Amino acid sequence: MIKKPLILVTNDDGIFAPGIYALWEAMKLIGEVFIVAPDTEKSAVGHAITISDPIRVQKIKRKNGFEGFAVNGTPADCVKIAVGALMDQKPDIVISGINSGANVGTSLMYSGTVSAATEGTILDIPSVAVSLDSLITLDYRFAMKVAATIVKSVMQNGLPKGTLLNVNVPAVTESLIKGYKITRQGDLHYLEGFDRREDPRGRVYYWMTGQIIEPVGQADTDSHALSKNWISVTPVHYRLTNDEFVEVLKTWDLS
Amino acid sequence: MIKKPLILVTNDDGIFAPGIYALWEAMKLIGEVFIVAPDTEKSAVGHAITISDPIRVQKIKRKNGFEGFAVNGTPADCVKIAVGALMDQKPDIVISGINSGANVGTSLMYSGTVSAATEGTILDIPSVAVSLDSLITLDYRFAMKVAATIVKSVMQNGLPKGTLLNVNVPAVTESLIKGYKITRQGDLHYLEGFDRREDPRGRVYYWMTGQIIEPVGQADTDSHALSKNWISVTPVHYRLTNDEFVEVLKTWDLS
Repeated sequence: MIKKPLILVTNDDGIFAPGIYALWEAMKLIGEVFIVAPDTEKSAVGHAITISDPIRVQKIKRKNGFEGFAVNGTPADCVKIAVGALMDQKPDIVISGINSGANVGTSLMYSGTVSAATEGTILDIPSVAVSLDSLITLDYRFAMKVAATIVKSVMQNGLPKGTLLNVNVPAVTESLIKGYKITRQGDLHYLEGFDRREDPRGRVYYWMTGQIIEPVGQADTDSHALSKNWISVTPVHYRLTNDEFVEVLKTWDLS
Repeated sequence: MIKKPLILVTNDDGIFAPGIYALWEAMKLIGEVFIVAPDTEKSAVGHAITISDPIRVQKIKRKNGFEGFAVNGTPADCVKIAVGALMDQKPDIVISGINSGANVGTSLMYSGTVSAATEGTILDIPSVAVSLDSLITLDYRFAMKVAATIVKSVMQNGLPKGTLLNVNVPAVTESLIKGYKITRQGDLHYLEGFDRREDPRGRVYYWMTGQIIEPVGQADTDSHALSKNWISVTPVHYRLTNDEFVEVLKTWDLS
């Protein structure tokens, strides 16, 4: 790398989350960092954007020089408004995370972390999502190293138009990590339940619950690699057409 | 068809929108209809789900026997809670719409209409999204016919696991319609702007604006077909791995 890259940092856990602070710490050693993130947690918002409400932006300072913009919107909004209104120039890379919890299998469709990176690719910016496979650990040190390695590699090698890297880091001590594995999005999904309750006024409400279903026999997938202590790196794009089925569909009698 | 199908109807414009009423009218001639839809407009929510807030469900009646459940959640929530808590048996088909406004190109990633159908495919139910290419017309009559034709065809032919049909109907008089065209998701996208304003208290806020960018020379795409008065039918799935890039990525030196 000759020039220090301009790095847009965002997330879906919100600008006050420990993961984005860790990511800032890792990225400021590599380039110039610009932080734009949701003002509160926006997990599972998928690729939502805010088109019917005003968007507000607030300057935020945390310890040790962490400065950024908090947005009352989604991760996708953050990337859009960063590039469209807040930054003087287009960033060289967008990095989203470090998410608390893995983003693998069908979770990619719900993930705000991944959607921020997707938004980066829509804007033709190389983009990366980084998640740590734990909802409780606050030890982001190894994931910070991974984020740095990935960003340097992306800056050196580039990414195809429309493709982001979805990176998931096992939450184990570094000595147990087996290395990097290039993976495919697997079929891990959730079996939802709905926990029916009554509020103090006697009105019914539900909590959505989810039980992880891990399909067997898929060796090269994101979730499988992660469970075996590999750092999973999946190239993700949004070409949503089922090309194989196009020809079949042409034979249907639609009239 | 031997048995009358059980049809789950939803949308993202909300249970009081004219489009879902029209869809109910079309579907009740084909099968048994079960309606679960957001209590207010949820456009552009993408594949958001509600995991950190309680979900409330309310019985709604509109004119002529339209009965359904209003959910204070997203379209994906509606499908999940319909199948997981409200319906006695799994529906034979999920149909989402009729949306006010086309869902083509990159809009598929932001569309609540499409995300409801996606949720159906995750639950292994054949699913369809139907949109009318107008933000203003209230004439859903032709789109109702299209929805009926598509649903009958899906019930007859089936769909591959994980694949939904994304249907877009031109908002022109029926005599101008050229017929059905099987298409691919195109690269139509939006160039966002941010309209910066101050509220009466002097605080800054932004409105997101969007200008449609239609790439040229893409003859078999959804947006192109639609603009030429074809009914666009795109088979959509969520296999997000960029398979071609996997091998390239394996050559990167990640260490």
